[in-house]
Amino acid sequence: MTTQTTMRDTLLQALQFRHAAKRFDPERRIADADFDAILEAGRLSPSSFGQEHWRFLVVQDPTLRDKLKAHAWGAQGQLPTASHFVLILARTASEMRFDSGYIDHHLREVEQLPPEVVERKRGMIGSFQAKDFKLLDDERAMWDWAAKQCYIALANMMTAAALLGIDSCPMEGFEPEPMNALLKEHMGIDTARARLAVMVAFGYRAQPQGPKRRQRRDDVVQWF
Amino acid sequence: MTTQTTMRDTLLQALQFRHAAKRFDPERRIADADFDAILEAGRLSPSSFGQEHWRFLVVQDPTLRDKLKAHAWGAQGQLPTASHFVLILARTASEMRFDSGYIDHHLREVEQLPPEVVERKRGMIGSFQAKDFKLLDDERAMWDWAAKQCYIALANMMTAAALLGIDSCPMEGFEPEPMNALLKEHMGIDTARARLAVMVAFGYRAQPQGPKRRQRRDDVVQWF
Repeated sequence: MTTQTTMRDTLLQALQFRHAAKRFDPERRIADADFDAILEAGRLSPSSFGQEHWRFLVVQDPTLRDKLKAHAWGAQGQLPTASHFVLILARTASEMRFDSGYIDHHLREVEQLPPEVVERKRGMIGSFQAKDFKLLDDERAMWDWAAKQCYIALANMMTAAALLGIDSCPMEGFEPEPMNALLKEHMGIDTARARLAVMVAFGYRAQPQGPKRRQRRDDVVQWF
Repeated sequence: MTTQTTMRDTLLQALQFRHAAKRFDPERRIADADFDAILEAGRLSPSSFGQEHWRFLVVQDPTLRDKLKAHAWGAQGQLPTASHFVLILARTASEMRFDSGYIDHHLREVEQLPPEVVERKRGMIGSFQAKDFKLLDDERAMWDWAAKQCYIALANMMTAAALLGIDSCPMEGFEPEPMNALLKEHMGIDTARARLAVMVAFGYRAQPQGPKRRQRRDDVVQWF
């Protein structure tokens, strides 16, 4: 374990290193152990009630990547050059509502809760979904809620990569309907249960990166 | 700089260490240098077009925390005990649309782009907002898009904390209307421009944590 100061420096260096790589060096492949750690960063991410609203599809087949390219204008440079290309899917309302089979499986098999705790937690999730944000009234609200959790996994995968000296690029530039149709037809995804939320590519940058531009700390942080 | 293997181990330990702390040790305060690094992890996070859709409000005043408690059922244990409590606000449609004053300021002053590049990037953002996700038709879609970016900052702040041995808890359990009214009345926030997306508390866990439960890798990751 490094000291606290070293860890802060390492972290800040990684955050400064990370940039949205538009194109990767097609000759460089991420080592399996490193990509494993990136996937773990996604899998171990927090999510609302710990219900893992995501699925990760790693697309390495060049023919399939080429098909994605037709409907992903934001990934034109990344799809042909990335060492690893990941589609992050969010589970739909039918999967994520408190009384679904997926939630039941998660509470019993994954979380291994005793029966009375299963019912209590299911009730809490149902109450959350029915109240405050009125998620149950609205498939779209359920979807956006699940998609938000996917952005947590997205962030952790990119930060994990940066800590390992690996570049990444998050991409929202795709046409949802044709992309989901493609997932169904060519990848066998049941799009009634999970749909594309966001894409992320990993690899090694093809070009050096300019300075990072952000607002000053005082323009984004206020203390009370 | 640590070796690649050490960094992978450190990262995976941090991911395993992180859990949603329901209650913190009220006697332990996060060192300023550590909390600075956590804020930097938020500030330096990626976002769509790099437009920093977020604002961070650090609420330390006990009276104000008490007021928040009335409308944040999900933060009952965290509000009184957290070393640092952060409200993450997402900028609204009026701020984030391609032709807003905020975007203009960001392109010119923050990103310091030359005039012709300002116009080109503004056009790209406008095209993205008009197309694919039809964001411009719909204030709610704009809001959800901005809120998703906030979850990237949220994740990075929690992972930064975990790397520094600091606990955290993300919280969505609040009543949006009264909370935003409170932000306006007691914190002077212009809620036409930014509204509460998610909350996150930082500190040191009051109790040991049970085992982390997640689906098996093969149940969330598929290769193509």
